[in-house]
Amino acid sequence: MMYGVIEAGGTKFVCAVMNDNGKVLETITIATETPEVTMATVIDFFSGKDICAFGIGSFGPIDINPNSDDYGKILNTPKIPWRDFNIYKALKERFDLPIKINTDVNAAALGEYMEGYGKGKRSVLYITIGTGVGAGFVLEGKTFYGMTHPEMGHLLIRPVEGDDYAGHCPTHGNCLEGMIAGPAIEARYGIKGHLLEEDHVIWDYIADYIGQALMSFSLILSPEIILIGGGVSQQKHLFPKIRKAFKKNMNGYMDHPVLLDDLEDYIIYPKNGQKAGLIGSYYLAKQA
Amino acid sequence: MMYGVIEAGGTKFVCAVMNDNGKVLETITIATETPEVTMATVIDFFSGKDICAFGIGSFGPIDINPNSDDYGKILNTPKIPWRDFNIYKALKERFDLPIKINTDVNAAALGEYMEGYGKGKRSVLYITIGTGVGAGFVLEGKTFYGMTHPEMGHLLIRPVEGDDYAGHCPTHGNCLEGMIAGPAIEARYGIKGHLLEEDHVIWDYIADYIGQALMSFSLILSPEIILIGGGVSQQKHLFPKIRKAFKKNMNGYMDHPVLLDDLEDYIIYPKNGQKAGLIGSYYLAKQA
Repeated sequence: MMYGVIEAGGTKFVCAVMNDNGKVLETITIATETPEVTMATVIDFFSGKDICAFGIGSFGPIDINPNSDDYGKILNTPKIPWRDFNIYKALKERFDLPIKINTDVNAAALGEYMEGYGKGKRSVLYITIGTGVGAGFVLEGKTFYGMTHPEMGHLLIRPVEGDDYAGHCPTHGNCLEGMIAGPAIEARYGIKGHLLEEDHVIWDYIADYIGQALMSFSLILSPEIILIGGGVSQQKHLFPKIRKAFKKNMNGYMDHPVLLDDLEDYIIYPKNGQKAGLIGSYYLAKQA
Repeated sequence: MMYGVIEAGGTKFVCAVMNDNGKVLETITIATETPEVTMATVIDFFSGKDICAFGIGSFGPIDINPNSDDYGKILNTPKIPWRDFNIYKALKERFDLPIKINTDVNAAALGEYMEGYGKGKRSVLYITIGTGVGAGFVLEGKTFYGMTHPEMGHLLIRPVEGDDYAGHCPTHGNCLEGMIAGPAIEARYGIKGHLLEEDHVIWDYIADYIGQALMSFSLILSPEIILIGGGVSQQKHLFPKIRKAFKKNMNGYMDHPVLLDDLEDYIIYPKNGQKAGLIGSYYLAKQA
């Protein structure tokens, strides 16, 4: 019984064959090109491998409503060749097997719920901050979606005093993603974020914006744990600042002991790091 | 088979005896005094009435986790006599019957889900804007709660240009509730909101703040319908402005047909108006 596991990212696809114990038996990483080119390589990789089910964590926006006719269809993405392409159907046509597809961030949240810091919790929020900003939410083992999947990265935040950057989001300017994603940092300073010193003022700004966003997520979802992954979260010095900004904004309002504590076990880097998405996609395959 | 239904509000309690068809057979409304005084009247009202189960929609913050030892306990409320009082236990001690308790706003969301504009939808968001601001969310028939119940009323919003009011929330100043709740309007102008003319600038501000908040709710929860009740929502002229502010902020980002449409069936006054909470509490009793 082998599972076909796919992390479908905007810049690369990671494919893995995993066994029933979650062991990776074989894996490839390929650049994301056109759907035709990329999916041909994906299908080729899995062919003849005795796969019983597929799990996919995909970039979005994507239709993840299993009752929809367009389940698995990539929607209004800036990656034009992928717009309206249905990953689920492409795979289903070639392999007539159970397939479950979800957003990459929901998959990562599921990965941490099953095998990470979310284990034993009722709810898990996973946020990625990298090329873009997104979040996935798992409640009682189920990945959350509403009318569409959430788009938490575009939350409105308040500009910090002294920060007059107009933001890098083509739709909202200075929304969360427009202020804290990797490309926003690069557009602002002409240099990649990881090359800026730890005492650069940008990290104070970013921590404040993340703290504001986490307050909104708490007020609305009240997750039992908040995990922050993605490229920008590699700046580990950000975490104490984020916790401080969260506390400052919340100002003790939700009087749960966890929120009144030091937050060191509440707002953290995922246990499975960059692998959370792959692990979650594996569980999607098992659920399928 | 009679159901005991209680809307436990901060200023009044509404109690009703309802039959299996949802018909109200008898009802009383009493002022909210100390727990001892109020609960004695409540218990007296229901005594000898052949009740089979109770449903309660209560003001908060309150523990609504059915697995908690403190299920039904009022938490850190500014109404000091009610702090740490357990409504569930007070009722359970007197009547050894199934009892279900939830927040007033979750009850209202459930009422609209079962018998209002949320009927047939997968998810319903109900917001009340009155003395305070709060919201309840129902997903697939279940009222939502995380580590605690949501506190959506305290969302951070961006002050509109020209509006330098510091806000009326003792904890957050100019959060959503601090800018749009009834007492905030009154503190600002020294006059109750319903006495201000329709073309007063306050309504433009309030519509903008609500539009911002609805954008955040949509990005995070993506509800299938948004219902706005409570005293301030009696200003029906607000609704077109709120829809406009929502659209302006969202700027077409979530490309679902409902969100790109005129929103007249998406952001609306509840079908059951002020009765949504009582109807929802009745369904809590039935679930119990």
